[in-house]
Amino acid sequence: MSAEASSSHMLWGGRFQSGPDPRFWALNASLPVDQRLALHDVRGTAAWVRALANAGVLTAAEREQLLAGLARIEAEFRAGTFSFAATDEDIHTAIERRLKEMVGEPALKVHTGRSRNDQVVTAFRLWLRDATDELDDLVRDLQTALVQRAEADQDVLIPGYTHLQQAQPILLSHWWLAHFWPLHRDRQRLAQLRARLNVLPLGSGALAGTTVPVDRTALAQDLGFADITPNSWDAVSDRDFAAEFLFWAALVGVHLSRLAEGVILFSTREFGFLSLDDAFSSGSSLMPQKKNPDGFELARGKSGALIGALTGLLTTLKALPSAYDKDLQEDKAPVFRAYDDLRALLPVLADSLRTLTVHPERAAAALDPDTLATDLADYLVRKGIPFREAHHIVGQVVQRAAARGVPITQWSVEDFRAVHPAFGPDVRTALDPWAAVARRDVPGGTAPARVREQLEYARATLRGPA
Amino acid sequence: MSAEASSSHMLWGGRFQSGPDPRFWALNASLPVDQRLALHDVRGTAAWVRALANAGVLTAAEREQLLAGLARIEAEFRAGTFSFAATDEDIHTAIERRLKEMVGEPALKVHTGRSRNDQVVTAFRLWLRDATDELDDLVRDLQTALVQRAEADQDVLIPGYTHLQQAQPILLSHWWLAHFWPLHRDRQRLAQLRARLNVLPLGSGALAGTTVPVDRTALAQDLGFADITPNSWDAVSDRDFAAEFLFWAALVGVHLSRLAEGVILFSTREFGFLSLDDAFSSGSSLMPQKKNPDGFELARGKSGALIGALTGLLTTLKALPSAYDKDLQEDKAPVFRAYDDLRALLPVLADSLRTLTVHPERAAAALDPDTLATDLADYLVRKGIPFREAHHIVGQVVQRAAARGVPITQWSVEDFRAVHPAFGPDVRTALDPWAAVARRDVPGGTAPARVREQLEYARATLRGPA
Amino acid sequence: MSAEASSSHMLWGGRFQSGPDPRFWALNASLPVDQRLALHDVRGTAAWVRALANAGVLTAAEREQLLAGLARIEAEFRAGTFSFAATDEDIHTAIERRLKEMVGEPALKVHTGRSRNDQVVTAFRLWLRDATDELDDLVRDLQTALVQRAEADQDVLIPGYTHLQQAQPILLSHWWLAHFWPLHRDRQRLAQLRARLNVLPLGSGALAGTTVPVDRTALAQDLGFADITPNSWDAVSDRDFAAEFLFWAALVGVHLSRLAEGVILFSTREFGFLSLDDAFSSGSSLMPQKKNPDGFELARGKSGALIGALTGLLTTLKALPSAYDKDLQEDKAPVFRAYDDLRALLPVLADSLRTLTVHPERAAAALDPDTLATDLADYLVRKGIPFREAHHIVGQVVQRAAARGVPITQWSVEDFRAVHPAFGPDVRTALDPWAAVARRDVPGGTAPARVREQLEYARATLRGPA
Amino acid sequence: MSAEASSSHMLWGGRFQSGPDPRFWALNASLPVDQRLALHDVRGTAAWVRALANAGVLTAAEREQLLAGLARIEAEFRAGTFSFAATDEDIHTAIERRLKEMVGEPALKVHTGRSRNDQVVTAFRLWLRDATDELDDLVRDLQTALVQRAEADQDVLIPGYTHLQQAQPILLSHWWLAHFWPLHRDRQRLAQLRARLNVLPLGSGALAGTTVPVDRTALAQDLGFADITPNSWDAVSDRDFAAEFLFWAALVGVHLSRLAEGVILFSTREFGFLSLDDAFSSGSSLMPQKKNPDGFELARGKSGALIGALTGLLTTLKALPSAYDKDLQEDKAPVFRAYDDLRALLPVLADSLRTLTVHPERAAAALDPDTLATDLADYLVRKGIPFREAHHIVGQVVQRAAARGVPITQWSVEDFRAVHPAFGPDVRTALDPWAAVARRDVPGGTAPARVREQLEYARATLRGPA
Repeated sequence: MSAEASSSHMLWGGRFQSGPDPRFWALNASLPVDQRLALHDVRGTAAWVRALANAGVLTAAEREQLLAGLARIEAEFRAGTFSFAATDEDIHTAIERRLKEMVGEPALKVHTGRSRNDQVVTAFRLWLRDATDELDDLVRDLQTALVQRAEADQDVLIPGYTHLQQAQPILLSHWWLAHFWPLHRDRQRLAQLRARLNVLPLGSGALAGTTVPVDRTALAQDLGFADITPNSWDAVSDRDFAAEFLFWAALVGVHLSRLAEGVILFSTREFGFLSLDDAFSSGSSLMPQKKNPDGFELARGKSGALIGALTGLLTTLKALPSAYDKDLQEDKAPVFRAYDDLRALLPVLADSLRTLTVHPERAAAALDPDTLATDLADYLVRKGIPFREAHHIVGQVVQRAAARGVPITQWSVEDFRAVHPAFGPDVRTALDPWAAVARRDVPGGTAPARVREQLEYARATLRGPA
Repeated sequence: MSAEASSSHMLWGGRFQSGPDPRFWALNASLPVDQRLALHDVRGTAAWVRALANAGVLTAAEREQLLAGLARIEAEFRAGTFSFAATDEDIHTAIERRLKEMVGEPALKVHTGRSRNDQVVTAFRLWLRDATDELDDLVRDLQTALVQRAEADQDVLIPGYTHLQQAQPILLSHWWLAHFWPLHRDRQRLAQLRARLNVLPLGSGALAGTTVPVDRTALAQDLGFADITPNSWDAVSDRDFAAEFLFWAALVGVHLSRLAEGVILFSTREFGFLSLDDAFSSGSSLMPQKKNPDGFELARGKSGALIGALTGLLTTLKALPSAYDKDLQEDKAPVFRAYDDLRALLPVLADSLRTLTVHPERAAAALDPDTLATDLADYLVRKGIPFREAHHIVGQVVQRAAARGVPITQWSVEDFRAVHPAFGPDVRTALDPWAAVARRDVPGGTAPARVREQLEYARATLRGPA
Repeated sequence: MSAEASSSHMLWGGRFQSGPDPRFWALNASLPVDQRLALHDVRGTAAWVRALANAGVLTAAEREQLLAGLARIEAEFRAGTFSFAATDEDIHTAIERRLKEMVGEPALKVHTGRSRNDQVVTAFRLWLRDATDELDDLVRDLQTALVQRAEADQDVLIPGYTHLQQAQPILLSHWWLAHFWPLHRDRQRLAQLRARLNVLPLGSGALAGTTVPVDRTALAQDLGFADITPNSWDAVSDRDFAAEFLFWAALVGVHLSRLAEGVILFSTREFGFLSLDDAFSSGSSLMPQKKNPDGFELARGKSGALIGALTGLLTTLKALPSAYDKDLQEDKAPVFRAYDDLRALLPVLADSLRTLTVHPERAAAALDPDTLATDLADYLVRKGIPFREAHHIVGQVVQRAAARGVPITQWSVEDFRAVHPAFGPDVRTALDPWAAVARRDVPGGTAPARVREQLEYARATLRGPA
Repeated sequence: MSAEASSSHMLWGGRFQSGPDPRFWALNASLPVDQRLALHDVRGTAAWVRALANAGVLTAAEREQLLAGLARIEAEFRAGTFSFAATDEDIHTAIERRLKEMVGEPALKVHTGRSRNDQVVTAFRLWLRDATDELDDLVRDLQTALVQRAEADQDVLIPGYTHLQQAQPILLSHWWLAHFWPLHRDRQRLAQLRARLNVLPLGSGALAGTTVPVDRTALAQDLGFADITPNSWDAVSDRDFAAEFLFWAALVGVHLSRLAEGVILFSTREFGFLSLDDAFSSGSSLMPQKKNPDGFELARGKSGALIGALTGLLTTLKALPSAYDKDLQEDKAPVFRAYDDLRALLPVLADSLRTLTVHPERAAAALDPDTLATDLADYLVRKGIPFREAHHIVGQVVQRAAARGVPITQWSVEDFRAVHPAFGPDVRTALDPWAAVARRDVPGGTAPARVREQLEYARATLRGPA
């Protein structure tokens, strides 16, 4: 491409004696990434046109010409007919170039008092505001699926795990809800970062503020921003909102990875508590019998990419010296990728949950009688034995059960009394998993009534904002 | 150490036939790290004792014995006289061991209905709550130092930078404030994460809830928590608060690194706008003339460690399958390190700022006349030339000035008119840096009145909570 | 897309009762990413066809049909005429689908004894082998540019920096070469990882080895691999080569960021030692005078993305349980991105260096006389004063010079003697920067003769393999 | 502490008018971290003393005094009697301070021609060289344990997994060896990075080379370095060796996490193939029955910290401008932590493997007959059916088996023929897992003879260097 033809060179070429080297140009151009901001840049530019007109920089006629041009550009983008030039450096120069083609000289005035520094970050904030709203809906839909599962699976007992060893029996519903609350916190965090995101930087110029007397507060209202940035340097250099979004996405990724790990485990042949629907499974090119939980594995795997995206942006931001450094061009790609990953994952996970099959009988059969050991110790505590001693006694019971090969649920009272005289005929009450579950009768516990209470609370959080 | 003597083995050894391998024991023990939780575990344990008594598990006499014992243990920690045993696995077993030495049998009841899983995370939350409060004060003090500098340096003009090239003149005050607002957002984030942190997990047992009918809401009040966790599995597995804190610290680190980079640059011989006080500089073992900005370099360098701490914890959390996995033992070290780093850095940076010397004359001398090029373009816009065309004309002015070796501030009106006839005798009004600064007269701009307005707003945010 | 029409469903649909959900399909499909492996998969498949024929699984006629089909597919890819079907799950199924369209039934035999697990990783290794060779050339070209600069700039003195404070004078050539050697180590690392990469996994089946008696050693030779993998499970699960490549890229990124930081600083108005050519600079949409070092800023900024890519893959790999987990699908995107970034950056940096202008007079003028303080201390050491004492005396000289406002190069002998009597008339020999440079006359030192020696060594490393 | 008393102030205080602020001092001091370099700094300093004497800077008498002093200091460190002063800034100033106390004036000459910049990095390289040798031994010991397991478990069949779903039967030995080879690559990488580490930076001065005519090659030989650094700036700024070590450690961490994940899974009640020895397990403070695989969980969890340490250092190194920036002080803590983590983990894992119990009968019982589906397809291929068609037929067999609830190993020949007429009476040969294993008879395959071959190869690699 010749330098003369470049739309950016049009923008800033006055002081340059030669045009850009083509490889430098290719490196420098951000269009392949930032064209996703097209509609948001059109919207931001239209608001700027109105502000310039209000400030007396544009006539009413110019304003109307420009707004009509921008409307046509928007229509071109929506119809997929907008045609990029090889010389477009980024989406912003592409739109300004097209506007000039459409309306002529007034387009040369559009950039008055504006810099790409405040223009780009305004479009990015507008885009991300929409993205967060969309993701909030998707997270809520996954939460809804978890609530639906929790409602459906209240009669299913599974082993609860610590260290991946069976620990105590719990309701499957309780486990589904354990994955609901992290997402609830995620929605809180999203709402809070959205508020910090929803602040207008436009009017900050390149770094020092604009010389055009635009009404920034009116501009913010025009674009739906709740506030304006208080310092022009900070306004163009701040990418906290992007970092905060990427942390949000990374933590959602971690939460999804933990849910996924559970589902992957529970749907192995060895655990066997769940089966995924065929529509959310895939097979093997070699092994005819395979049915694999690819969606959940991708959720787990993509948590790595999400964490990497966060690390990458934070590292890029480290020690940047200026109000705007070109390094900031690296801000959008990780944000777009994180958004794409979550937008692809969340609905698949939600519907995978909705369509899976639970195998209550296999879960019940899997439950190790030893998971009632804590209840046996509690039984001894009720007989007046200090807990630490009770714990020790039951440890010996368990060890003896293993040695004899007879599970404690099949022990006679005498068997127990041979270990310690405090055991009485009522010991069998301690050995019923449903009774054990019912005994965890505190707020947040796995007792059925408590899980119903928890479900009610969970449903309530879905009705309002986070 | 013999297995018999181990206080943990005391805790869980009933079912074990042999004691732990010493190297396994050393790997497993977390005492070197978690002993920092000592006072917070004592506090949590005392509250648990009161809750057990209220639930009828302990008599009033036992309660008093235990609380007296815990008070003595606290006193030992405060006096530095608490003596650890080689067999203490972690701070929690150490305290239970010591309590037993002090009060005997009642100590064996303290763990009734409690698991280390809910105990540890309760102590960790209590510790981190205090840490966040302390860090909030330190961040606010650094903000105060920035405000003080901004007040002091209102008459100092410096070049503003983009791409580390001089862009437009700004007030040094404006630059200091550009570093105030990121910290303001940090304080907002900290307040919000503190609220998510300030929720009681105790009473969740190992994973399924406790069988002891404790009043968790009363327990929360006792410990100053604002709410209780709604799901026992989530309560013991959730480390969102630690991840959120580490993200907070990493982003603070990025903000400090950017401030530091600026100060390091501005105090080079080449920029020369600032000099650090001797008390906050160090020298060289070899080069007698050196005076180095080590504090700011460490701020910049430690941003790496802070980002690494965040990455590490998120990676550790990825795909954990259980309510509690031992992997979670890795949660505290990075949090402690991040806290230590910030607690060491923040006051040094604040006082470094307060004590540095500004060199207004060197800053003024450094200002490139070309930084007025935007104002020259704005001048042409006021003469009716569209901005894009004005930009191109001024680009040619700048190029010609470089070729002639005569800065534009020394050009005659004829020189300007030789480039374009729109220039008139009033062109010199566009070439005064103070006038240029004054023209950025929008909210957030660098005009002196706007900076005073901004200072007022900044001071106001320091008076209340973030 | 209907499930029936899916080429993957063709591959593995036998046991499935329903087709995939479209959103699950979209999430699962890797074609948008892995289509870059097209030519390498064709090559790997052709070798597999030959191996199957040698093992008696295919007839000679079938072999020829298939090889001809694959050759036509390769031609389609090269011509850009290969047409993907909406049902292609990945590049491998696309190629198998197309092969069947072309040659019919023999295509159904191509996957005999092969799994996508060993197929994919074979194609990935082939691709990355080519990529490393290309990047090695590009790194070498950047090294060549550094050597060219070092040759050209042997007569240029600049201040050397520690803590970004002037420390001692050095040759600019020495500084360019300081950025040569990290890249030399990078080339060594690349050669070593290439050797680990250049090992054939094909023939490992899904995880347990293939049942077809293929000659894996012959297969390795066919594909240019130096060795075969020793364990089939490890062969399909190993992504060390990708992680090692990403670490390599991240460290190259760090090296480029350090070079870039130096060039950015040295081309500021304040330092002023260098000017970039217009062809490798860009301007500002708002500020007509700006000329920005965007290429170097992007080098610095992209080091973040490269570190993030590494972090992401390592995190994805953490704790994967199986021989192949779908998480591994996330292996290629970060590798492709790292390759793209470096391939774009390296030539731009090399030619930016070749075309920049050095300003020796500005560098000389910038040199602080205090950078000779170490030489002054060495002078005193030669007079018999212990170094530590000499250091202290010179510290006082420097302090007094600052107080008097007279640089030490302008001091009289009496001025020096007023600080310490050991100074004599020959003190001025210690105050010449070229003499100072010449005194660093050890291997690796900045003395001109040593730099010439170093240049010779550097050139020699470029002639052979790393 | 008063500034006068500070040993660093002694080092560099000549030009300073006031002493350091105590909080600045605390931040700046690296002694708590770098005191681990004590013996290596003594060694490096002794070599420097010999080099200075050879260069004529020290007399023979001074040399002997200094070497005797250093020997006494070394003895103090080894005996734990070395006493630090509150004013010691780092281990290097502490040693120089102590040396002066011991030998007086000659100690003031020790720093002649040396800077802390080259001194510190020399000691760090010496330390890390020892650390890598120690870790190489520990990795080899873990490999030995894997080989021992592989030898012992050759008669044990387990399901092989992809997507954590049973895929094909394999030998347990094969699985152990799958974890051997990644460690083999790790040892190769370690040997290669050790070679890059084993290069002498001393003699590079602060950044420009030393003015003392020391023989750097002789100095390298004295300290056992294989080469000398070729550029003094690079010599003091290069931390590639630390980054490379941290990548090495992170990748080892990933490998350990994958082994750990497998062992954790296989020792669940649900899988049940393995039991850990009591000496390498721990229990629960609440649940008496628990026996947890803490060592393996910590291996998995610490992979996060190892990845974080790498990320942190790379981020710290990004864009450092000078030959030495204080940021580099952050290089040692992550290296020490990574070393400590691996040194604690590796022996525990090795002995955990050696002492665990395998349950062959449970593994055999767990094997799903459907894992023979690939062999059934291969059987059809041998009957002349193209693989892709055979795969589809067997998919239907598997689906029908699930529907009927009769595993394919219990099907009659007629049952098979009802699906496809190509099945014959010999179909049962395809349904024996041991035969299936034996059929994977290619290099790297799981056939017993191949595993024996692999074992032989593995053992051979342990005998020599990596």
